[in-house]
Amino acid sequence: MSMIINNTIKIEEGGGGASSEELISQIRNILNAKNSWSNCNDDAAVFSLGKEKIVFTTDAYIVDPIFFPGGDIGKIAVSGTINDISVMGARPIGISLSLVIEEGFSKNDLFKIIKSIDSESKKAGVPIVTGDTKVTEKGKIDKIEITTAGIGLAKNIINNNGIRPGDAIITSGNLGEHTIALLSERFNYKTKIKSDAKAFNAEIERVGKYLNACKDPTRGGLAANIIEMAEKSKVAIHLDESSLPYSKETKAITDLLGLDLLSLASEGRFICAVAPKNADKVLAELKKFNRETRIIGRAVKGNGVHIKTKFYSLLPVRKPIGKLIPRIC
Amino acid sequence: MSMIINNTIKIEEGGGGASSEELISQIRNILNAKNSWSNCNDDAAVFSLGKEKIVFTTDAYIVDPIFFPGGDIGKIAVSGTINDISVMGARPIGISLSLVIEEGFSKNDLFKIIKSIDSESKKAGVPIVTGDTKVTEKGKIDKIEITTAGIGLAKNIINNNGIRPGDAIITSGNLGEHTIALLSERFNYKTKIKSDAKAFNAEIERVGKYLNACKDPTRGGLAANIIEMAEKSKVAIHLDESSLPYSKETKAITDLLGLDLLSLASEGRFICAVAPKNADKVLAELKKFNRETRIIGRAVKGNGVHIKTKFYSLLPVRKPIGKLIPRIC
Repeated sequence: MSMIINNTIKIEEGGGGASSEELISQIRNILNAKNSWSNCNDDAAVFSLGKEKIVFTTDAYIVDPIFFPGGDIGKIAVSGTINDISVMGARPIGISLSLVIEEGFSKNDLFKIIKSIDSESKKAGVPIVTGDTKVTEKGKIDKIEITTAGIGLAKNIINNNGIRPGDAIITSGNLGEHTIALLSERFNYKTKIKSDAKAFNAEIERVGKYLNACKDPTRGGLAANIIEMAEKSKVAIHLDESSLPYSKETKAITDLLGLDLLSLASEGRFICAVAPKNADKVLAELKKFNRETRIIGRAVKGNGVHIKTKFYSLLPVRKPIGKLIPRIC
Repeated sequence: MSMIINNTIKIEEGGGGASSEELISQIRNILNAKNSWSNCNDDAAVFSLGKEKIVFTTDAYIVDPIFFPGGDIGKIAVSGTINDISVMGARPIGISLSLVIEEGFSKNDLFKIIKSIDSESKKAGVPIVTGDTKVTEKGKIDKIEITTAGIGLAKNIINNNGIRPGDAIITSGNLGEHTIALLSERFNYKTKIKSDAKAFNAEIERVGKYLNACKDPTRGGLAANIIEMAEKSKVAIHLDESSLPYSKETKAITDLLGLDLLSLASEGRFICAVAPKNADKVLAELKKFNRETRIIGRAVKGNGVHIKTKFYSLLPVRKPIGKLIPRIC
């Protein structure tokens, strides 16, 4: 233990990039002996109960600002946990809601958030079934922190490590719009872009049986998440520059601000891998939800994630390192 | 909504007493339409799956100090959620661990907490199966906040509203020692009392089949929790002054500090109601874990919770109101 004395937590260790991964793996190592978390490939745990599988997951939400174009902290807390269950191919059956509220926080804002939670929960058809409410002294937390957990049931689990060479890589819509919407207030730019935050359980219900792998590109965006999927699946992925799943406006704003396009987070989109013969079926189903769904690349034998550009070079995609953008999920 | 404009959250609304209840019921009302939380009698949700019932619960932990005699924030986060599942008569099968850590927090302290989580999880035989780790800017949270959720399986659920007239009211050990241990540092008094924090799933496994009702007296202590059980069960409860479940030292410290004995929190004890014919069996089993287990009173027809004193008067026990003691769970 002596080597870690005087070490303190850095903000980068929460960014979803390489230093986050290291902190999490240090925590997992301590919990490893008999705990299944360390053996778990995904962000959720799976229990078998008869023919059913129970999927169980959790996420903490500290978002600044708490209200943003297209949503608020409550909406992403509910949809985020519903989505974490959905990407495993499970049907979410209940969400828990744990609130930590700062003394002096506006009750108007609190109830606005709770209404948004209620609305998202009803839209997705997944009830809030249990909860906890704590109030803490002024200054001990910034406004409000929400942690949701959720359980779902599945017959068959989709993992994020199931990509096979040849698979088409599909995104369920344009990416990064959650980050763009959140940053518009902080960087004071005008944009029509709204956060993409929403529960996508209905989409997965339609296409789940065709998915070899699935993941939601939240923290760390497309870059961190597609790299993780490729590494775990032991395949290489070639993305096609001309199909990159970003709107013109998103691209323009990142150019202007010098942000890394591929690390922008989404809160209502997923990336999936589909056998070539099923790709058209999946695209057709997903188009009913979002016109911007598309094939962004292919898996091949090998390793690493690269982007094919107009001039045929394969540019390596790298994991975001450290603190790339302000906290947005 | 106009009536709540300009209203802000008060610290009392997190204390576990009457104003907490009101805030929680306001939140539940917004979530009520189709959400089962509002119909739930207890602090956990129950799903039926074939012959099994899935119990699902969550709790947020913000404790000051984070290390205290007999435990730390990690120990109570794990044992608290295990206990919330156990009081429902369910066998906990997995716990989720969501961490929000302040930038600059000592890694030494973090890993000490994680080790304590691991140790409590192993002692109780309940693994940490999934988790989330977030880091937030300095000042946006006080050191560390932990939210745990958990799932358990049961054939038969124990509710907190099942007390029947005639039942013996039993406590699994002396109460209030968690609060006494936590406050010793803040009020700077010396005590040998250590926090009672621990997982009591093994105890419930032994006696669960005999319990008509069960609850853990955390926030709000014996007072708030026995009143809640009596109200929900529609019975009156007569506690016996001479059997009140507090050690001499606990009583002396509360006298000195002017704290309300009956509102002191425990993190490793439960209160249960048992038919008279089973009371001796339950006491005998629980004595194997804790010598201080005892019958503290009886349920009778009627309503309200009263204490019988030496002179035969029945003093009413009242719910703690507002901010009674510093945040300890």
